[in-house]
Amino acid sequence: MPTLRLALCQVNPTVGDLAGNAGLVRSWSRQAADAGAQLVLFPELMLTGYPVEDLVFRRSFVAASRAALHRLAADLAADGLGDLPVMVGYLDADGPPQVSADAQPGRGARNAAAVLHRGEVVATYFKHHLPNYGVFDEDRYFVPGDTLTVVRVGGVDVALTICEDLWQAGGPFAVAREAGVGLVLSINASPYELNKDDVRLPLVRRRAAEAGAPIAYVNMVGGQDELVYDGDSMIVTADGTLLTRAPQFVEHLLVHDLELPAAGTPGGTGALTDGMRVVRHEIPAIPAAPTGPAADGGIIEPVADEAEVWHALVLGLRDYIDKNRFPSVVLGLSGGIDSAVAAAIAVDAVGPDRVVGVSMPSQHSSEHSRTDAEDLAKRTGLDYRVEPIQPMVDTFLANMSLSGVAVENLQARVRGVILMALSNQEGHLVLTTGNKSELAVGYSTLYGDSVGGYNPVKDVWKTLVWRLAKWRNADAVRRGQTPPIPENSIGKPPSAELSPGQLDSDTLPDYDVLDPILIGYVDGDLGRDGLVESGHDPAVVDKVLRMVDTAEYKRRQSAPGTKISMKAFGRDRRLPITNRWREDG
Amino acid sequence: MPTLRLALCQVNPTVGDLAGNAGLVRSWSRQAADAGAQLVLFPELMLTGYPVEDLVFRRSFVAASRAALHRLAADLAADGLGDLPVMVGYLDADGPPQVSADAQPGRGARNAAAVLHRGEVVATYFKHHLPNYGVFDEDRYFVPGDTLTVVRVGGVDVALTICEDLWQAGGPFAVAREAGVGLVLSINASPYELNKDDVRLPLVRRRAAEAGAPIAYVNMVGGQDELVYDGDSMIVTADGTLLTRAPQFVEHLLVHDLELPAAGTPGGTGALTDGMRVVRHEIPAIPAAPTGPAADGGIIEPVADEAEVWHALVLGLRDYIDKNRFPSVVLGLSGGIDSAVAAAIAVDAVGPDRVVGVSMPSQHSSEHSRTDAEDLAKRTGLDYRVEPIQPMVDTFLANMSLSGVAVENLQARVRGVILMALSNQEGHLVLTTGNKSELAVGYSTLYGDSVGGYNPVKDVWKTLVWRLAKWRNADAVRRGQTPPIPENSIGKPPSAELSPGQLDSDTLPDYDVLDPILIGYVDGDLGRDGLVESGHDPAVVDKVLRMVDTAEYKRRQSAPGTKISMKAFGRDRRLPITNRWREDG
Repeated sequence: MPTLRLALCQVNPTVGDLAGNAGLVRSWSRQAADAGAQLVLFPELMLTGYPVEDLVFRRSFVAASRAALHRLAADLAADGLGDLPVMVGYLDADGPPQVSADAQPGRGARNAAAVLHRGEVVATYFKHHLPNYGVFDEDRYFVPGDTLTVVRVGGVDVALTICEDLWQAGGPFAVAREAGVGLVLSINASPYELNKDDVRLPLVRRRAAEAGAPIAYVNMVGGQDELVYDGDSMIVTADGTLLTRAPQFVEHLLVHDLELPAAGTPGGTGALTDGMRVVRHEIPAIPAAPTGPAADGGIIEPVADEAEVWHALVLGLRDYIDKNRFPSVVLGLSGGIDSAVAAAIAVDAVGPDRVVGVSMPSQHSSEHSRTDAEDLAKRTGLDYRVEPIQPMVDTFLANMSLSGVAVENLQARVRGVILMALSNQEGHLVLTTGNKSELAVGYSTLYGDSVGGYNPVKDVWKTLVWRLAKWRNADAVRRGQTPPIPENSIGKPPSAELSPGQLDSDTLPDYDVLDPILIGYVDGDLGRDGLVESGHDPAVVDKVLRMVDTAEYKRRQSAPGTKISMKAFGRDRRLPITNRWREDG
Repeated sequence: MPTLRLALCQVNPTVGDLAGNAGLVRSWSRQAADAGAQLVLFPELMLTGYPVEDLVFRRSFVAASRAALHRLAADLAADGLGDLPVMVGYLDADGPPQVSADAQPGRGARNAAAVLHRGEVVATYFKHHLPNYGVFDEDRYFVPGDTLTVVRVGGVDVALTICEDLWQAGGPFAVAREAGVGLVLSINASPYELNKDDVRLPLVRRRAAEAGAPIAYVNMVGGQDELVYDGDSMIVTADGTLLTRAPQFVEHLLVHDLELPAAGTPGGTGALTDGMRVVRHEIPAIPAAPTGPAADGGIIEPVADEAEVWHALVLGLRDYIDKNRFPSVVLGLSGGIDSAVAAAIAVDAVGPDRVVGVSMPSQHSSEHSRTDAEDLAKRTGLDYRVEPIQPMVDTFLANMSLSGVAVENLQARVRGVILMALSNQEGHLVLTTGNKSELAVGYSTLYGDSVGGYNPVKDVWKTLVWRLAKWRNADAVRRGQTPPIPENSIGKPPSAELSPGQLDSDTLPDYDVLDPILIGYVDGDLGRDGLVESGHDPAVVDKVLRMVDTAEYKRRQSAPGTKISMKAFGRDRRLPITNRWREDG
């Protein structure tokens, strides 16, 4: 049995940065070569980043991706890495877009992978299964491939696949078995969701069994707008053994030796699954097998849910800030739990020197709203400021006749104006900090506390915000560091402090009651009857669902934020604003 | 040859209002029966409205649609309309959603049509071609049908089709020919785009030729969030003759007699196009052929582009206001062309008593900014108010150290706070009035002039805003009415008036230069080289493209507005915020 040393490059490309992403491939291929690798993998759409969305329709962009691929092949050879086969995702076009006389805007592009060798593109593969659910719109963009590409590398037949191919039975992996391959490569841009790592390993196992061959699975890492890729790259054998697994949320080079069957007589010439064909290539020579001890990538165990989510939120925010080249962020500090957690995430993401926290007290603000904010600032070291809002609020009130909710919202909107003024004056990205529960029921002021370019806790239910705060503080204690979040912010009852003595519980059910209803309705698409059958109080269900339904217009104008759940607000959940459907009739 | 009297009901349902929409079917079927109709058609997804988006995933909603359909059949019979066959669009489920162990959230629903007769659902059809481009995401929601349903009505074989089926060759219309039908019914929810009516008629002609049979095409009318359906229902013969055509943008009952071939020996038993099957039903009896003169629906000629767009914008806004049950709207009046046109649209939509216009002068406001706003108010009769912003601006400036663009934006944001305060206090929907050119280049203040729940001119290029203003005024003169828009608002150079002597032309190319570049880049997906080849100045192109690319974050939080172009900002054009791709490298 030949042995191949694989290098899975779990890296962090940036959407649209073709030159930068190609540079990553070159530098990581160099590291892989230094580690003795004989076959190197990079993630799906490595050259363009993922998702590029409607950039796919820009011919100039597709052409640039193709040109970058060929330049990369030449550059790798010039780097002295020509013999090392490198599999990399890129955007391709297979002829002009499909536009007929009965014309609908045509898909013509391909979600593609290439194997580069000796300065050439020696093999390509087009993704067969296209996801068009959740956050994915690939039927909008791509034509599916109908060919399995098999490349003989070091005497082993290796099949190429891309991401969604793995998530459906009966496609390229079944064909890989029919073709008798010894190894399947799977390159991915698979966004993080809480518990997805628990799904991924069994999935890879099922598909390895289907292919009758081991799978080398490499995933992207890093943030892209609302998505964060968690890595979690791995190699699994046909019998389901996990050989090696990379950590989540960090760039990582996973190098591992695999004993593989020598290629025999090629199969896959009869009628194949899904009507696919098999196309074969052979790479004449690869780097010699390294001497010395076998490479073992090791197995990283998954961490606790709270740790996982925290790392996801930190990475998602950091990459939004840095990939968009913001020098710093600014956010309002109310002394409450949401802004405290958001500030702690921001400090973990970019350091306290790049985080400005602003306390904006009003006449309704409690003493602790300011002292807790100040405490947070001391604990984290962020740049702390105080901007009282009462003079501006009073001027509005002196010039307009306002009462009730108009006065409440006015205070939040003056705070929004202050944060945006600081942003315009000093260049900060404004962070908004409404949690998922608030966003769901519309418990926020549009253009007030919702002001901001990014929301680190957008997809975090309120009850999870509290759990994250406790975990982060406990983790600090474990490390011998100062817990960043004031205990008082965790313990006190939530309040918007927009009117005297106001508490969230005046308007909303307790979050312990609210969140399970919201999770069933939003994440689970349960209707009223399903929720009542689950044991929730019908009157509370009716009230909550009505709040969710009528807040759609606010969500439509909300800032992006990191997706961590199976269904985040945003492109993951698409509902009309104008909508008379009410679950209670 | 039998003669059938068809009634095409071009009506305006509301998303989610199952009972209300069923009520429309009953009342319009009654009118159709009174006109002697023997076969009645309603639009695609008539019972649920269109698009219902992720409501499709709510089992409670799909079940309610099915229940409403059966109740409607019974109600029509109870209304004494049982003999009259009624074709109506509804949402169906064909078994449980497709969820496998390798589970992705499954599509399981059907975009369906039913024929109701004598209290029963006698035939159903599932849409075969699913659009997944532009504003459409039907691959996300629906399983395509693979059966052509043919119903014998009054001795004529009639095939059922739905919307997108018409836009692609080689599907149900080819099968209809193979099945030897005498008539094809096409029910639609086809959103308006400028010039789409010029596409639609030739398309129906091609498909009628393909089917070898006449097509009765009925389209929805009315606004739904960003979409507006224009009607434009018609009947076209196999040889391409347009027999009758309904007006756009109004509800309309189109009644027309058609001589049709008697059904012969059924065809369609061999191998059929697209692997489709044919299923046949027969309706035993329909209302007797009416005596008296033949019914002729007449042919409405298309109107000029400006009139068409104006009507689209008025209907889109009116339905957003009324379907969401807003009592009134409020908008800022700057004396400029955008707010003047938006106000005139609002007055046309809901009348001057439901429109509040607010002049919000600052120290940089010109005298004409107020007098032109006042003139507009007088011409239209809207509720006019003046709210000077300087006291609030001065208070912010006294409490913060701001300069430059921070001060400019502050003024716009104080205006946003005022409009939202009026909205909270008095219940108005706030209209924002940034045109498509401004939205494209980001020439607006986030949370300032962009504040609002709806934007009537969101998809209107600045040069078209001017054309619309001139057309609306000229149309008023033709009708002997007062032109609503002050000539001075049309004639003066555009300015944001946020700093002394400021003009749009300080920052932007002339709109005559800017708009063609934007149209090529946004609507046409041309890259830099394509634009330069079209004759645009490379330096201007580079500047404009960079502005468009870096304004994506503003558009992401912008209000919805009526789509009138082939590519509107919003779901029609999906681009990443984090995006390093620049056309000029």
